[in-house]
Amino acid sequence: MNQDYIKPDNWSIIEEGFYAERVKSSESLFSIGNGAMGQRANFEEHYSGDTFQGSYIAGVYYPDKTRVGWWKNGYPEYFAKVLNAPNWIGINVLINGQQLDLNTCKSVDDFKRELNMKEGWLSRTFKATLPNDVKIKVAVKRFLSLDLDEVGAINYEVTPLNTDAEIIFQPYIDASITNEDTNWDDKFWDATSVNYEGHQAFIEAKTMKTNFHTCTFMESKVCINNKAVFVDQNIENTANYVSFSYAYSVKKGDNYSIQKFGGYTVDRNHNANTLVKAAKHALKKATKKGFFQMLEDQKNAWLNIWEMADITIEGDVKAQQGIRFNIFQLNQTYLGKDSRLNIGPKGFTGEKYGGSTYWDTEAYCIPFYMATKDQKVARALLEYRYNHLEKAIENAEKLGFTNGAALYPMVTMNGEECHNEWEITFEEIHRNGAIAYAIFNYHRFTGDYSYIPEKGLEVLIAIARFWQQRATFSTDKNKYVILGVTGPNEYENNVNNNWYTNYLAKWCIDYAVENIDKIAAEYPEDFTRIINKVRLSDTEIQKWKAVASNMYFPYSEKHHVYLQQDGFIDKELITVENLPKSERPINQKWSWDRILRSPYIKQADTLQGFYFFEDKFTNEELERHFDFYEPFTVHESSLSPCVHSIQAAKLDRMEQAYTFYLRTSRLDLDDYNCEVHEGLHITSMAGTWMSIVEGFGGMRIKDGKLSFMPKIPKQWKGYSFKINFRNHIIKVNVTQEQTYFEMLCGEQLEILFNNKALVLESNVLKAVS
Amino acid sequence: MNQDYIKPDNWSIIEEGFYAERVKSSESLFSIGNGAMGQRANFEEHYSGDTFQGSYIAGVYYPDKTRVGWWKNGYPEYFAKVLNAPNWIGINVLINGQQLDLNTCKSVDDFKRELNMKEGWLSRTFKATLPNDVKIKVAVKRFLSLDLDEVGAINYEVTPLNTDAEIIFQPYIDASITNEDTNWDDKFWDATSVNYEGHQAFIEAKTMKTNFHTCTFMESKVCINNKAVFVDQNIENTANYVSFSYAYSVKKGDNYSIQKFGGYTVDRNHNANTLVKAAKHALKKATKKGFFQMLEDQKNAWLNIWEMADITIEGDVKAQQGIRFNIFQLNQTYLGKDSRLNIGPKGFTGEKYGGSTYWDTEAYCIPFYMATKDQKVARALLEYRYNHLEKAIENAEKLGFTNGAALYPMVTMNGEECHNEWEITFEEIHRNGAIAYAIFNYHRFTGDYSYIPEKGLEVLIAIARFWQQRATFSTDKNKYVILGVTGPNEYENNVNNNWYTNYLAKWCIDYAVENIDKIAAEYPEDFTRIINKVRLSDTEIQKWKAVASNMYFPYSEKHHVYLQQDGFIDKELITVENLPKSERPINQKWSWDRILRSPYIKQADTLQGFYFFEDKFTNEELERHFDFYEPFTVHESSLSPCVHSIQAAKLDRMEQAYTFYLRTSRLDLDDYNCEVHEGLHITSMAGTWMSIVEGFGGMRIKDGKLSFMPKIPKQWKGYSFKINFRNHIIKVNVTQEQTYFEMLCGEQLEILFNNKALVLESNVLKAVS
Repeated sequence: MNQDYIKPDNWSIIEEGFYAERVKSSESLFSIGNGAMGQRANFEEHYSGDTFQGSYIAGVYYPDKTRVGWWKNGYPEYFAKVLNAPNWIGINVLINGQQLDLNTCKSVDDFKRELNMKEGWLSRTFKATLPNDVKIKVAVKRFLSLDLDEVGAINYEVTPLNTDAEIIFQPYIDASITNEDTNWDDKFWDATSVNYEGHQAFIEAKTMKTNFHTCTFMESKVCINNKAVFVDQNIENTANYVSFSYAYSVKKGDNYSIQKFGGYTVDRNHNANTLVKAAKHALKKATKKGFFQMLEDQKNAWLNIWEMADITIEGDVKAQQGIRFNIFQLNQTYLGKDSRLNIGPKGFTGEKYGGSTYWDTEAYCIPFYMATKDQKVARALLEYRYNHLEKAIENAEKLGFTNGAALYPMVTMNGEECHNEWEITFEEIHRNGAIAYAIFNYHRFTGDYSYIPEKGLEVLIAIARFWQQRATFSTDKNKYVILGVTGPNEYENNVNNNWYTNYLAKWCIDYAVENIDKIAAEYPEDFTRIINKVRLSDTEIQKWKAVASNMYFPYSEKHHVYLQQDGFIDKELITVENLPKSERPINQKWSWDRILRSPYIKQADTLQGFYFFEDKFTNEELERHFDFYEPFTVHESSLSPCVHSIQAAKLDRMEQAYTFYLRTSRLDLDDYNCEVHEGLHITSMAGTWMSIVEGFGGMRIKDGKLSFMPKIPKQWKGYSFKINFRNHIIKVNVTQEQTYFEMLCGEQLEILFNNKALVLESNVLKAVS
Repeated sequence: MNQDYIKPDNWSIIEEGFYAERVKSSESLFSIGNGAMGQRANFEEHYSGDTFQGSYIAGVYYPDKTRVGWWKNGYPEYFAKVLNAPNWIGINVLINGQQLDLNTCKSVDDFKRELNMKEGWLSRTFKATLPNDVKIKVAVKRFLSLDLDEVGAINYEVTPLNTDAEIIFQPYIDASITNEDTNWDDKFWDATSVNYEGHQAFIEAKTMKTNFHTCTFMESKVCINNKAVFVDQNIENTANYVSFSYAYSVKKGDNYSIQKFGGYTVDRNHNANTLVKAAKHALKKATKKGFFQMLEDQKNAWLNIWEMADITIEGDVKAQQGIRFNIFQLNQTYLGKDSRLNIGPKGFTGEKYGGSTYWDTEAYCIPFYMATKDQKVARALLEYRYNHLEKAIENAEKLGFTNGAALYPMVTMNGEECHNEWEITFEEIHRNGAIAYAIFNYHRFTGDYSYIPEKGLEVLIAIARFWQQRATFSTDKNKYVILGVTGPNEYENNVNNNWYTNYLAKWCIDYAVENIDKIAAEYPEDFTRIINKVRLSDTEIQKWKAVASNMYFPYSEKHHVYLQQDGFIDKELITVENLPKSERPINQKWSWDRILRSPYIKQADTLQGFYFFEDKFTNEELERHFDFYEPFTVHESSLSPCVHSIQAAKLDRMEQAYTFYLRTSRLDLDDYNCEVHEGLHITSMAGTWMSIVEGFGGMRIKDGKLSFMPKIPKQWKGYSFKINFRNHIIKVNVTQEQTYFEMLCGEQLEILFNNKALVLESNVLKAVS
């Protein structure tokens, strides 16, 4: 809705000037999170303008009712909804009895918001003239602690500028919240206790149905000119709300401030009966350190993350800001500390997509986490799916599959499917392939094969079983076909023989068989254990092979391309270029049938296959398919531009690669899809990382070796990134002239540079070109 | 749920014995209606067992919320829901203070229910021993008056058999009702006033959102041994309920009875402010006649209906009962008196399908009404769509069509679309063709061309425009294709080139052009008026013709059949015969994706085209297509068996035709699809009529002449029906030996019998063979 108002800056997201119409967009863009919780950048003080309140706790969701209108067998009972959690950031500010509300001030000047990504904090400063003509200066800083991840801290300072004034701070916690996306004004939280003691307050609340127990807490202290003062404290409370009042007669020019600590303890980490105790413990640790020491710790914690994850771009501030914003938001969302959690498409920045796990994790996020964190993190993401295997088998059984075939859910919180559009839930089955692919990708990158005999093979077998059963034999084609699917391009539904799906299905079976053979030979004990557990016979494997070896792939002899699906070339093949701008984005302008019969592609579909399996195709083939499909691609999925950027770079089309790079990296900052007010596109941000590292850097794993074929957009002086490859940390720095490799950690390693061997030594900078 | 318990009987539906598990099914089967209102056969007295309460008023509906989960552009804001209306039939019966409730009686003996179709009433008799050991005999008769169609009448008699007893009748009206299908326990009625006066009571209530105003009313009197007695009357009332109490000490063996008159006045027929007055007026007319005179009038009114509409079958009671049940229910649902009303798939017998108008009316019901009523009735059904033309154009505009193209809604109450499955709402567009076909069919049968220049042509033009815009050109096929549709077989969604749809699209354009030419030549004034109104140019007509003359029809060279859609023969072509019974009905056993990729056909699809356009195909073609498609047809739509019965008869497969006939005619009586408890399949009942008249009777219109090629199942001695053909009433009586024609009304008429001319004279019986 509000595009292009973020100031270019290398390390910060900065907004200047107060515009009510930008508030919801900025609330998304300035979101903060620490992996355990996160929140939109809502104001602490009351705001009566248009706002989208959101504070979210990792792993806390609600199963909303789905049963309305027409029902189809096999639909899940509910769809998961990420829940807006009780508000702990609120601080009402009264100046001579007048509520501070930016929506009603006579003027708001020098308004500036900054999200400092380097140090992990959000600040806001402004001057305001209230309706009662008191003029004040306000400075607020807030962060969610990485170290104490149950706690956030706020320092809120007010200085009256034109008069003495009685200022009241009313910090509060409030569990009477609901969701913006609630259909019927449902209540999702049940507050079970409200307690306060000294300057601390606690509300225990549990979610309806899912019974997640939480304690929302706060503790505050006030200062004059940075010195603590004792102030009479008034308390107000209801069954789901507590506020304290700290009134002080502040002299003109004096700085009256409140430091508020707050957050959540949850029963995922504590016994449900000890949440208040745990909250007190967290508050004790936080207040003992104090706001400023915590802020120092925060800077250091982010320094550690950036140390490994940063990507620098020289000579292009917008590009630099974009990639850092992406890396920052990914780390705010998921740090890999808890294998019960995953990466929702909107992270902690909005309600859409229900905060759930999609195939985005396997297809887009795992490469980022593999290369920028310890490999345990990626392994934890694989284990998340292993732990859901039984439920994936149950899910397949609901759809008529047997014998341990698994269909992983399209959207899930706990392993159960929780989405109910039939064309997605039942038919967008390629997701199953991405889960197998992630296992392959993890092994390829980390070299850690142990995961496959330990856990991965069971997943691969269950997935292979699914594909064998899902394919049917066409006597007309004398081939196996896969009918009635939705590919990655969700602008096609219920199509036959989506090339990507068919290709992935065949690959999944082949890969399962390859691993069965390897484990039979090399891990006989694991082999026996698994085969006995899943009761896999040679006869069954032969059935799989029959399908994999005789799969149908739609192909156009006329265009020399694999067809996205049967019948694709019967469409009116008018390219996006020839589509009036006024008709776009088509998902906001066109009815669904019109989208479906159009040739327009939401995100890489055939090209997603070329991305996953690029070794299987020549550059000429890639080019032909890219040139055929990209002109019909509207990139209305956030997951689209990154894949195209990588492929354009591979094809040496650097202008196009650069355009796609900006689109993926600044998708939210520049609000390409006119929806940033709903929240950020977190999972696609990992795609942005890939578009630099794999796209421009040309990073691949070739025969177990790390390989680079760097390219650089002409707009850039240089760029650099680091890769954690099998416990070697390698810094890659690409300039217009040369590429520099430096191994910051690890023993000697042979890599490939432009397909030639290059040996890296510990802490030796190598320049090559 | 409860199959095969209805006693075979020529004129009545009879159930003997009380079985709680049958109650909901019987409530459907014994439903009564009079075109203006209708109700399930709920008990008058309290019943604590499993029941589905339903009383419905024609034209009174509610727009329920549809917005849940995932939304798609172009979806309607609501889906229409037929509303359960306030209850006026209720009579609590207390025997010595004990509530009569068949669910709690110690015993229920000699229970018998009868729906007398000849005379149009419902009765129930039983003996019951109450928990307090009082044994009573009960006899109830109820009907909804055809003459006074706002009124129903009940005569409820109780005789204590083993003791004197104090008996209280508590007749009541109750507006605190809701729908069985309500998702969130919503309230749909707002009672605005409650009045009572003497023995009359009135509740005015309006529907939420739609603001339909109604007055529900009642008046009662009690008798001992059929003589009116004066009894003290107690009144209870709340904001949406009124009951009167009539207590009497009844001697053993005496008959205490209550006659209750009740019903609705609605603002479709009266000013909303005068509904109570209108109700009093209706009550005055009813009570003046009294129950027994009204019952006599009812018998006569039904006699008049049967006089024209009856079909007799000799030698096969079940077949006879079946067809009469179908004719009876159709007449209970729609009598053609009000052109604002239409024929909902469940009539007044349940909530499913929302009581709305579907293409069923045009494809199935119009032939029945054309041949058994004055042709005004069929014309009124056409005008219903003409009156909705503007809304159909608006509906098409929402989907991106322009220039006055119309897409009639799939489901409607008032011309607006009110269904929101994208694969139906946006894609089951063949419905548009049925609306054009009905115009053709009306003219073909009645010979009344005047409707087309007056109104029909505008509809035909708007429909032709739609098809021209909806078809797209495939450069690959060098043909026009229609992508992304759902055919009549709803077990396929979003397919390309559904043969039936493509064929109908071409036909619609051809038929529109034909009529434009004819009207230009023969009705120049109408032509000028219409062309100016719709701004139709020759250039545009050329575009239509380009599409119609170069339409693609999928065809299998291997099977020598038109394909239901592109790709049909890629399916696993396993016939229904080879599908385990335990898997059926597939719509209750299989997930949607499995149904979609199967070859199973819900109802005639390609064969529906062969039915509509049989003249265009040879018998050999019909046979080939029938043999190809019928074996994959599961007939899980009520609209399926009738078409197959007609075609089997045409192919001289009398055994098969007979089997399909029983299936269509006794679909509900024998509960083939295990769902009669939800209500009856009203619109398919017109298909049953067609399967006798068109199937066995072989009735067609050939070159404007009525034509018959009668056949007779070997199970029958004979059958007869009457046809109102252009003001000639012809009785056709077919025996195993001969066919008898008798013209009961009208001048000399030449018809065709087995393709030979036969001249009928007024009141002369002609036997031919």
